Amino acid sequence: MNKQELGWKKVDELGGARGMKAIKAMEDASPRLARLALEFGYADVYENDNLDLKQRALVTLSSLISQGDAGRGLHYHFYAALNVGLKKEEVLELINHCSAYVGFPKAIHALHIFQEVAEEFENNN
Amino acid sequence: MNKQELGWKKVDELGGARGMKAIKAMEDASPRLARLALEFGYADVYENDNLDLKQRALVTLSSLISQGDAGRGLHYHFYAALNVGLKKEEVLELINHCSAYVGFPKAIHALHIFQEVAEEFENNN
Amino acid sequence: MNKQELGWKKVDELGGARGMKAIKAMEDASPRLARLALEFGYADVYENDNLDLKQRALVTLSSLISQGDAGRGLHYHFYAALNVGLKKEEVLELINHCSAYVGFPKAIHALHIFQEVAEEFENNN
Amino acid sequence: MNKQELGWKKVDELGGARGMKAIKAMEDASPRLARLALEFGYADVYENDNLDLKQRALVTLSSLISQGDAGRGLHYHFYAALNVGLKKEEVLELINHCSAYVGFPKAIHALHIFQEVAEEFENNN
Amino acid sequence: MNKQELGWKKVDELGGARGMKAIKAMEDASPRLARLALEFGYADVYENDNLDLKQRALVTLSSLISQGDAGRGLHYHFYAALNVGLKKEEVLELINHCSAYVGFPKAIHALHIFQEVAEEFENNN
Amino acid sequence: MNKQELGWKKVDELGGARGMKAIKAMEDASPRLARLALEFGYADVYENDNLDLKQRALVTLSSLISQGDAGRGLHYHFYAALNVGLKKEEVLELINHCSAYVGFPKAIHALHIFQEVAEEFENNN
Repeated sequence: MNKQELGWKKVDELGGARGMKAIKAMEDASPRLARLALEFGYADVYENDNLDLKQRALVTLSSLISQGDAGRGLHYHFYAALNVGLKKEEVLELINHCSAYVGFPKAIHALHIFQEVAEEFENNN
Repeated sequence: MNKQELGWKKVDELGGARGMKAIKAMEDASPRLARLALEFGYADVYENDNLDLKQRALVTLSSLISQGDAGRGLHYHFYAALNVGLKKEEVLELINHCSAYVGFPKAIHALHIFQEVAEEFENNN
Repeated sequence: MNKQELGWKKVDELGGARGMKAIKAMEDASPRLARLALEFGYADVYENDNLDLKQRALVTLSSLISQGDAGRGLHYHFYAALNVGLKKEEVLELINHCSAYVGFPKAIHALHIFQEVAEEFENNN
Repeated sequence: MNKQELGWKKVDELGGARGMKAIKAMEDASPRLARLALEFGYADVYENDNLDLKQRALVTLSSLISQGDAGRGLHYHFYAALNVGLKKEEVLELINHCSAYVGFPKAIHALHIFQEVAEEFENNN
Repeated sequence: MNKQELGWKKVDELGGARGMKAIKAMEDASPRLARLALEFGYADVYENDNLDLKQRALVTLSSLISQGDAGRGLHYHFYAALNVGLKKEEVLELINHCSAYVGFPKAIHALHIFQEVAEEFENNN
Repeated sequence: MNKQELGWKKVDELGGARGMKAIKAMEDASPRLARLALEFGYADVYENDNLDLKQRALVTLSSLISQGDAGRGLHYHFYAALNVGLKKEEVLELINHCSAYVGFPKAIHALHIFQEVAEEFENNN
């Protein structure tokens, strides 16, 4: 498997059908950005075993909440977090934890997005 | 134990003597900010068991890297992360992971601070 | 009155019926985040008299504009600012002032949100 | 021509009819913010020849992507960038470049906004 | 008085000898940036009376804390805030207030800078 | 040449001896982060010709100024920008331009770092 294939495999593992669709939409808009994301962001970054997928989900979500992601990234990665096995209670507590480190406005913004995603995830699973 | 005492206990558990000293310095400058940090940031936030201390360390560090913390917060929380049992390899991989989510400049900035802290931690332990 | 009740009282004082509704929606999604916000963000933070409600509104709004709040926080706190007695002219000048400190894109983003909120506030009052 | 007129001229040069409409909407909401933007943000800043309009577009877009602009600024300035002659391929590569400096979430957020703007621009030209 | 002179007058009013020195250092490095700051950032922005100097200081400091200013801006504007008459207690409470809106790391970073500035201010006055 | 070698070649082209030293220091602290930076951040990102090195320098610097880089990234990339042929006047105007898009505090912070770097660059060339 080449790096791009490894990347797609990782997208599928993280985000399932929903993730594949999102990355394909990105590929339509910019094949080169999609290739960089697949080869670097997925294949290279996720290949290392020092953190597992659930730990990475905590890191990714905290980063998105902290950078004030407007919505697209939070939707995608909240779904992926639940999909790799993070429990709803763990995600909610991650948001609570972030309130002390980046303040309530970003935590509350994230909470309302998570609420939508959790509902969508439960309907699909 | 009242909330403030619970907060100090948590500071000790996270940061040991180094952590106690940092919060006491904050208390000298602003007793009220220290009380808010102890009662809310430590006692209230950390009392919940849905995330353990190592998971919280991942979340905190990702937040600090992502918000471009100038140094004080990263020093404090890199030390605390090692102190609660996160392995050096896990912290390094957290930094690698962040490079894809917030870019290389913030990851490299964090790496050089971590290098100092890891050395200090090894000398103390 | 316990801290949570003090928090609700403060929410009412700041945001009126609109504010109560917003915090109740947050409570539905995450009772623990709502409790942390009420007890810390409202009861503990606002109890101190060194800044009055209008001064706090200036600080809160400047923070939200500067962190590039996507919209939810700005809506809530623009309304609260008018509700505690900040004049429309003061809020507009706060936005002008911010243009020099965080640039025009964040100031203009905030202005258009304020325009909606000011209209809603005038219709309600 | 006074500074305000120079500002309007620059808005027209950058954003054409679409740009004029956006700044007029800002002027309706806050005449003073519009004046500050026109006299400083346009007349004073753009009068200098050390960078040309295409170079300035690269700088502006990188700034907006990096500060996580929620959408309004990116729409306006993606359009202006194409309007002053930056090629679609250059803008796409700017987004790719940013992925290494601010991470993929901000790059992908920008890409999807650019896709809409590029389509709108092609329909108008 | 032309705009540049008005700007210098405002710098003096805000920062006194310390402020004048800082802006002159900026002028040495970039006469054009200094001119833009004086004419726009000082003369144009501060001429309006809808906010007074103490209110503007609250807005400026909240912005700097929220954007994670590395130090230069916080030093300059903490000094100016005390110089225009904001009380030490008000600045400390502003920092406390910010802890709920941008999290403790930025609040604590600011506190330690303020501690240095407050000492310097007391020695000079 | 493999990707890692291509990456080193690009580091040399951008930052010369100073750049090589910085990336080697990073490699000492984290071989994996260095490899990711070389293969992705340098080899993959810079291989595309839709933007040349001077255009990329504008994009990189605007990003670093806008994200409030504490210093390490700005030092490295101001030097690289001069090294690939951006004129001092162009860099100064980029900083001026950014003042309108991210505010004066970040522009002034960057200016003082650039002043040091420009002096160092002139001494070396």
